[in-house]
Amino acid sequence: MINSIENVAVTGGTHGNELTGVYLVKHWLSHPEEVKRPSFLTELHFSNPSAIDEIRRYVDQDLNRQFNIEDLNNPDLRGREQQRAKYLNELLGPKENPRIDFVIDMHTTTTNMGTSLIFNSGDPLEVGMAFYIKQHMPDAALFYNPSDRLQDNFLRSMGRLGGLVIEVGPIAQGLLNYQVYSDVQTAVMHALDYLELRNTGQDIPLPQKMEGYRFLKKIPLPENAEGEIDAMIHPNLQNKDYQAINPGDPLFITLAGETIPYDGEQTVYGAFINEAAYYDRHIGLSLMEKIQISLEGQHS
Amino acid sequence: MINSIENVAVTGGTHGNELTGVYLVKHWLSHPEEVKRPSFLTELHFSNPSAIDEIRRYVDQDLNRQFNIEDLNNPDLRGREQQRAKYLNELLGPKENPRIDFVIDMHTTTTNMGTSLIFNSGDPLEVGMAFYIKQHMPDAALFYNPSDRLQDNFLRSMGRLGGLVIEVGPIAQGLLNYQVYSDVQTAVMHALDYLELRNTGQDIPLPQKMEGYRFLKKIPLPENAEGEIDAMIHPNLQNKDYQAINPGDPLFITLAGETIPYDGEQTVYGAFINEAAYYDRHIGLSLMEKIQISLEGQHS
Repeated sequence: MINSIENVAVTGGTHGNELTGVYLVKHWLSHPEEVKRPSFLTELHFSNPSAIDEIRRYVDQDLNRQFNIEDLNNPDLRGREQQRAKYLNELLGPKENPRIDFVIDMHTTTTNMGTSLIFNSGDPLEVGMAFYIKQHMPDAALFYNPSDRLQDNFLRSMGRLGGLVIEVGPIAQGLLNYQVYSDVQTAVMHALDYLELRNTGQDIPLPQKMEGYRFLKKIPLPENAEGEIDAMIHPNLQNKDYQAINPGDPLFITLAGETIPYDGEQTVYGAFINEAAYYDRHIGLSLMEKIQISLEGQHS
Repeated sequence: MINSIENVAVTGGTHGNELTGVYLVKHWLSHPEEVKRPSFLTELHFSNPSAIDEIRRYVDQDLNRQFNIEDLNNPDLRGREQQRAKYLNELLGPKENPRIDFVIDMHTTTTNMGTSLIFNSGDPLEVGMAFYIKQHMPDAALFYNPSDRLQDNFLRSMGRLGGLVIEVGPIAQGLLNYQVYSDVQTAVMHALDYLELRNTGQDIPLPQKMEGYRFLKKIPLPENAEGEIDAMIHPNLQNKDYQAINPGDPLFITLAGETIPYDGEQTVYGAFINEAAYYDRHIGLSLMEKIQISLEGQHS
């Protein structure tokens, strides 16, 4: 394990209107000592410069859905972000055997998810990073979204040994907020510190298990007969990310003021509750289950 | 004064990513009884359908800066929103002598301005509407931004007898929030009720004076030598709209964490503190002075 990590990519502006990551990359480019660690190289990248220029999430397609191995190798996908993904695949990859060992991708959300650490494997390196950050930032939430690295279409999946999405909110798109900027910055510092400790074979005292949440499914916003959004998040649920939603609890409220309850049969937990970026697909929130995340990979 | 108001326009989506007004117009189009008043006609308009379709503030130019009389009559201004303003000038105007008597334009902001009632004249009809709404919504703020109706470039200036901007926040762009939706809806209801009372000659007990704020100037976000944004709103100032800013108080914090204080010589009050829509012009906040708004027009 010693010195197994040689190249780490810290990426911002994967979504061009999430300014926090963009301005952290700008800041670190002029203060490289902050992200430098003795045992590996840290690269800084603006993931989507075209979208950053336009202060938009994306120009043609969501860049953070383009890194599936089949899509990367499909020459017919020629939209702006599809081409950008191919360029990043050359720069960081190739995906089958990437040059980059670990990707730390910085995001923000309009939802009240605080500092959320999103990982997709049971690998101890990746899970351990999330645990280490949460040890230092106890309010952070562990968000487990299982997927296969090659099939995963997120930029984080370009890391040979793992990847982490740092997702902080609430913050509107298109602006900076010092608290959010500072939380993302702090989380990245801990992530790099963790990799340095691992790389140099130092003992990292981590618990075997920590509480977290596993992604279950996305819940659409209610629509009218014409397929238009017809309801919004119920005020009782707004800002209540990672809190229990029990059967019968209010989920939505229609434009006319009528409450729509949760019709599931067991307690779940909300996340991404009222994310602006998901309105184009009429998605209202994600449902999660509370689980014990295991350092050794069997989350239950 | 009796029956002097015949046509009132309620407009939403002047900025296409401020969904609250868009969805209130949609709601009222299917529930027209809510905006109907016996003594005048209420028209509902989507101000900028192209921008609404794209969930963007605007396509080519900010529509809400295109209603200056010279610009409306300048055939060389042919951008998407410049043409849309000419269309609205035909529909609601002409500006020199508008068909529409009063415009109520619905907006939202990423800033913590609560319910802000923005008016630009000392006319008792317009000021009285703001007073009437504030009587029923005591937390609402009176925001006086003096301008000449013909020179004013906001959509609200298309009303022959007056106009009001209802500006509610905080809310991110591109989403709905029930509290904000409900506050805008309630404020519009009071505005229409007020016009009905005025139109039918009923006695409306209003105070002669109420506390409010007069716009002074906009303060740019600090820039580096390359003209890039180099600092953000200081955390002590974030969300503190309409609170006092004294000489020496923290205003900004640089990306590197250095505080930049307010270097003015007298106490002012902030508004539009960290509005995402103003980042393209690198504007950080507006400074206001606290004044007594007079029903008869001499604000001091």
